[in-house]
Amino acid sequence: MAKEKKVNAITDMEVDFAQWFTDVCVKAELIDYSGVKGLFIMRPYGYAIWENIQSWMDKRFKELGHENVSMPLLIPESLLQKEKDHVEGFAPECAWVTIGGSEELQEKLCIRPTSETLFCDHWSHVVHSWRDLPMKYNQWCSVLRWEKTTRPFLRGREFLWQEGHTLHATAEEAIEETETMLEVYAELCEKVLSMPVVRGLKTDKEKFAGAERTYTVECMMHDRKALQSGTSHYFGDGFAKAYGIAFSDKNNTQQTPHETSWGVSTRIIGGLIMTHGDNNGLVLPPEVAPIQVVVVPVAQHKPGVLEKADEVYAALKAAGIRVKVDDSDNSLGWKCAQYEMKGVPVRLELGPRDIENGVCVAVRRDNFEKITVNLDDVVNGVKDALALVQAGLYEKANKNLTEHIYEAHSLEEAKELQEKNGGFIKTMWCGGLDCEVAMKEKAGMTSRCIPFKQENLGDTCPICGKKAEKMIYWGVAY
Amino acid sequence: MAKEKKVNAITDMEVDFAQWFTDVCVKAELIDYSGVKGLFIMRPYGYAIWENIQSWMDKRFKELGHENVSMPLLIPESLLQKEKDHVEGFAPECAWVTIGGSEELQEKLCIRPTSETLFCDHWSHVVHSWRDLPMKYNQWCSVLRWEKTTRPFLRGREFLWQEGHTLHATAEEAIEETETMLEVYAELCEKVLSMPVVRGLKTDKEKFAGAERTYTVECMMHDRKALQSGTSHYFGDGFAKAYGIAFSDKNNTQQTPHETSWGVSTRIIGGLIMTHGDNNGLVLPPEVAPIQVVVVPVAQHKPGVLEKADEVYAALKAAGIRVKVDDSDNSLGWKCAQYEMKGVPVRLELGPRDIENGVCVAVRRDNFEKITVNLDDVVNGVKDALALVQAGLYEKANKNLTEHIYEAHSLEEAKELQEKNGGFIKTMWCGGLDCEVAMKEKAGMTSRCIPFKQENLGDTCPICGKKAEKMIYWGVAY
Repeated sequence: MAKEKKVNAITDMEVDFAQWFTDVCVKAELIDYSGVKGLFIMRPYGYAIWENIQSWMDKRFKELGHENVSMPLLIPESLLQKEKDHVEGFAPECAWVTIGGSEELQEKLCIRPTSETLFCDHWSHVVHSWRDLPMKYNQWCSVLRWEKTTRPFLRGREFLWQEGHTLHATAEEAIEETETMLEVYAELCEKVLSMPVVRGLKTDKEKFAGAERTYTVECMMHDRKALQSGTSHYFGDGFAKAYGIAFSDKNNTQQTPHETSWGVSTRIIGGLIMTHGDNNGLVLPPEVAPIQVVVVPVAQHKPGVLEKADEVYAALKAAGIRVKVDDSDNSLGWKCAQYEMKGVPVRLELGPRDIENGVCVAVRRDNFEKITVNLDDVVNGVKDALALVQAGLYEKANKNLTEHIYEAHSLEEAKELQEKNGGFIKTMWCGGLDCEVAMKEKAGMTSRCIPFKQENLGDTCPICGKKAEKMIYWGVAY
Repeated sequence: MAKEKKVNAITDMEVDFAQWFTDVCVKAELIDYSGVKGLFIMRPYGYAIWENIQSWMDKRFKELGHENVSMPLLIPESLLQKEKDHVEGFAPECAWVTIGGSEELQEKLCIRPTSETLFCDHWSHVVHSWRDLPMKYNQWCSVLRWEKTTRPFLRGREFLWQEGHTLHATAEEAIEETETMLEVYAELCEKVLSMPVVRGLKTDKEKFAGAERTYTVECMMHDRKALQSGTSHYFGDGFAKAYGIAFSDKNNTQQTPHETSWGVSTRIIGGLIMTHGDNNGLVLPPEVAPIQVVVVPVAQHKPGVLEKADEVYAALKAAGIRVKVDDSDNSLGWKCAQYEMKGVPVRLELGPRDIENGVCVAVRRDNFEKITVNLDDVVNGVKDALALVQAGLYEKANKNLTEHIYEAHSLEEAKELQEKNGGFIKTMWCGGLDCEVAMKEKAGMTSRCIPFKQENLGDTCPICGKKAEKMIYWGVAY
């Protein structure tokens, strides 16, 4: 139905990728702009995607023994300042409340940019004994970071997220938690969102403010830029010491616990759009699509068509499929373009002749392939089509990722490869900050991660020529 | 097990009701205090109660065709000021952001105390035609109101809530929505929380800032004070006009739509505590209890006891019951006191002799009654016990409510009845603000509502002596 798309005309992604992205956000009715720069309204269709992501994550977190809590919105300046690296990282982006009611506050309060300081303060009240550990908490909330440039989903001054915070008796246990939660994020990306990832460790330069280690899952977008899609941090005992958290172990000796935190935000919806979308609009993986199937009756004025459409609707709904019938008086072309714009994974077309033949036609959103489905086995037929879309999207995205990882042996070569192809450029790396800064300044790339799956591309760092034992991925990131 | 309670000793409610309330909040591990006055931490056990309430409401809202959205946290001062009554009501309690990043903001931003202004601003962008109506939106979030005195759950500067906002083509449809949502709140209180309510209309003095009508459900606490537990507002077209929302009807004529909003907050958890709690701690209705049944093995070192406890656990869990086994090395007395403090509706005691006899003992939290349950029908036995607790709590609370509604025919009599008995005092009322003010100043009572179920107690207002056609409830409220 690509010919019909001009009903909703959006900019082609090859013409202006950034404008295409914004057009999709607006025309698919995901967001609206508010009166404050960088604070976006998530409209019902956009929020429903987030609810489906939330629902999967919340269930997974709870299966792994985490409990939800609610921490305050505001952090006193003095509390934020207790951990030196952390405050240096976040203070420049804080929004500050200075007036409460009609009075100037004695101490200004920061709207949480992240809640490590609040969790630590709370734990310092309630953790006393080894019996109190581990603490495995999660919070669903919004946070504020006063960014200069803002874009829907990708960079908001306010965004929604989950932040997990855990406290453990030993470093080993905390590191295990950090790695487990990274794997949950990888599972979310790959299985639920059909987004292949590169798992790895951030460099010291790119790690979270105050963390000892930051793990990341990195995705590649259509334009071959990188999107950091989820991060998991190991803090060691630094925060615990700064905030005075201690526990007595089984031998009644005072010990300092070890901490982690991990988060995924609505940014990942930006990732979904830029991974799967096309010039007809949004394309959603069935697992998180608010509408998985739309039934579009053809010649709906003819006898029996709407009745059959309602029958199909009832059967799919009873099978737990998120389905909608569009029996409005809009034209067939308009309807098709509309649901393509909204990225509905499967469109079921159902007309008088189809009904006569006992079939309907399932159109896949990912490749417009038409599948004939028997009406007397419509639930299985639709389930199969949804599974094909879910898998098809992953395959296509994985092809984009694997075909755009390039190997370089000098900074110059890395720069040329990036300029020519985009994608991830893999090189050996000495581990030095200077080389990372040089890559940024001379080739415009940041380090994405030191992948878990290492390869030996040589023995020296292509930037400084010193000995190098690690392979690293570079890229241009959102 | 009341004798065991001193393990967790809390203040008796007859000695100091306010202290009893705070003790329950802290000892049942519902909350912790944060570094900012009036901003509370909801700990896992407290938050899980809210999650259960949310889950029921969210499902009910969606069944009625509402969609969730996410609106911004911050409101520009100029946007807040567009509806005169609304800003007068809320401006004195606003917390203001004046610094973003390192810069002074050109316009100060208020942290939302409620979001009517944001919904209206959004609707002014997206509502154009009668086809766009109704808009039936809901949002789960936290709001801030800079109160002077604060208490856990009952009065926080920050609290969690849901705020529904809807927009309709006609006044009739909007009023119907307002009334429907009040009935949903009544259902929540009565069926889910075992809290009987009085349904009614607020006076002009007590209605929401900017509303034409506010409906309310009012509950009575143990100390016979009133708690406003949910409100639903009809705005007419006042906000729509102030914010420039218009639509073209089927005849292509421009019309102004009509609006509603409605909210329930975590305050209702304060209501739960003060409706059902006792001197042993919290008492939770099974519908929202995070743990509905705790299995406490007796003489757990004896062979077969823990195995049987695990078997019972597995059977109950498979039946969808929220169940926990406590096989820790704490004493039986400590365990019993602990789960009484936490208000777990049913405790299952299971020892070697019980197992021999093929039974276990279910102890009801609401009245400590012991029920013998056959182990080979343990799921049904436990379900019955849970239903008895749910109904028993409602009956007890309903007795408290109905026995403490008193009729008065003069201000003096109303004052005496309140001082002697507390509760609701019903009188006729002329509808005048002066009489309402007089009741507050002379008898310390505010109007709670004009109940839907009217009675004719006479023809004159007992305060001014003028003609009166309405019966009103007065009380001392949280």
